[in-house]
Amino acid sequence: MSRNFKLTLAYDGTDFYGWQVQPQHATVQGELANAIERITCERVLPQGSGRTDAGVHALAQVASFCLQSPIPPENLLVALNHTLPPAIRAISVEEATAEFHARHSAKAKSYEYRIFRAGICPPFLARYVHHHPYPLDEQPLAAAAGLVIGEHDFSSFAAVDLERGKDLEETNNTRTIYTSDWRREGDLLIYRVRGNGFLHHMVRNLVGTFLLVGKGSISPEAVPQIIANRSRSAAGPTAPAGGLFLVSVEY
Amino acid sequence: MSRNFKLTLAYDGTDFYGWQVQPQHATVQGELANAIERITCERVLPQGSGRTDAGVHALAQVASFCLQSPIPPENLLVALNHTLPPAIRAISVEEATAEFHARHSAKAKSYEYRIFRAGICPPFLARYVHHHPYPLDEQPLAAAAGLVIGEHDFSSFAAVDLERGKDLEETNNTRTIYTSDWRREGDLLIYRVRGNGFLHHMVRNLVGTFLLVGKGSISPEAVPQIIANRSRSAAGPTAPAGGLFLVSVEY
Repeated sequence: MSRNFKLTLAYDGTDFYGWQVQPQHATVQGELANAIERITCERVLPQGSGRTDAGVHALAQVASFCLQSPIPPENLLVALNHTLPPAIRAISVEEATAEFHARHSAKAKSYEYRIFRAGICPPFLARYVHHHPYPLDEQPLAAAAGLVIGEHDFSSFAAVDLERGKDLEETNNTRTIYTSDWRREGDLLIYRVRGNGFLHHMVRNLVGTFLLVGKGSISPEAVPQIIANRSRSAAGPTAPAGGLFLVSVEY
Repeated sequence: MSRNFKLTLAYDGTDFYGWQVQPQHATVQGELANAIERITCERVLPQGSGRTDAGVHALAQVASFCLQSPIPPENLLVALNHTLPPAIRAISVEEATAEFHARHSAKAKSYEYRIFRAGICPPFLARYVHHHPYPLDEQPLAAAAGLVIGEHDFSSFAAVDLERGKDLEETNNTRTIYTSDWRREGDLLIYRVRGNGFLHHMVRNLVGTFLLVGKGSISPEAVPQIIANRSRSAAGPTAPAGGLFLVSVEY
């Protein structure tokens, strides 16, 4: 009898070519599939709640997969952490209903983007932050973040993916953002966003745009217009991957 | 006119083959020499307060070197942090007297060894701790640490270096330890030691021996006898490099 599993995992994305399995490169999905195969002798492709790009981290990514093996979830958890590289950790494993799918069943996701503000970034943080020691006005930054809350067509903040380009007209880029704010924690300036879904590069493009506001290049009031333009060229650049964390997925 | 510099630097040692320059591998000393050359066009070999092994980290290693260049220390600091990889950061640069030598002038050093005690080690800590989730009795661990304080011949805790082996009889392995203790910080169990100098592998060999005490394999009272034996085989194994930090050097 096939059983469906829900796996929650954390990873340091620095040394992986993102989530999605690739022929020549180490990826999180690939490492996970290899570990499951070594443990159960079954080759499956674990489905993530979404792809994360190269260098992006996860505190609690969720993956689902079916196994014939009768291995108890608690044993699978221990075996995974013995088999996976230390940069990927299984946090919890549970049996799920047959209908559960990490991506299709997801109701909401939260991301965090961490910016280090002091002049010298400690080497132990360098992989996990975007080092930006230059002046930023945090008041308009906060105002801009609030203006993306709600249901919008976020095409201006979607990656221009060449392979997916042809379908752009047919793609629904409408998403709902529930919370969006910046907070300060010592030398860290942290953006936190929760929504029902996110387009490819969307959080990094939002952050890149907010940074333009913080630098004074554009005003917070420009943000609604950037959304209305539905054009990638209207928004700011893509912030670097290393500062981004997938924090949680809700079902 | 030649000027002598004192540089304090922090590094994540994971991806380096230790401090000392090597022909085929990235080392901290090598990266530093390359950065100084790119900035000043002068080829120097910065002298560290001591070597750190592959995988060992530093919060405040000290290096000294002489330059003909009239570059102000504050400019050298900024230029170094623009040139060095993010895993190595210059914390401060100052001009020193001509007599100052990072190794010969050092009066005392402090090291920290970090052990992660919980069952699942977060991927963001994995490079910076020794993950040891197995039972440890912290009371005898603390007792054992106290018994190495004072002036002793620490030959039992010195690496058996084949290349230096011939001179072993002539080597003075006497060092003075001023403080040596364990403390608990959440899931971290941290050994901190301060002394007038340390032999190669000495802190990791002390920790490996204390862990034998914590596991109940030997009693704290065995430690003075291990010291008295002056034989590497009397002590415990070498603890992994990743948990070790050079914390500070005093002059």
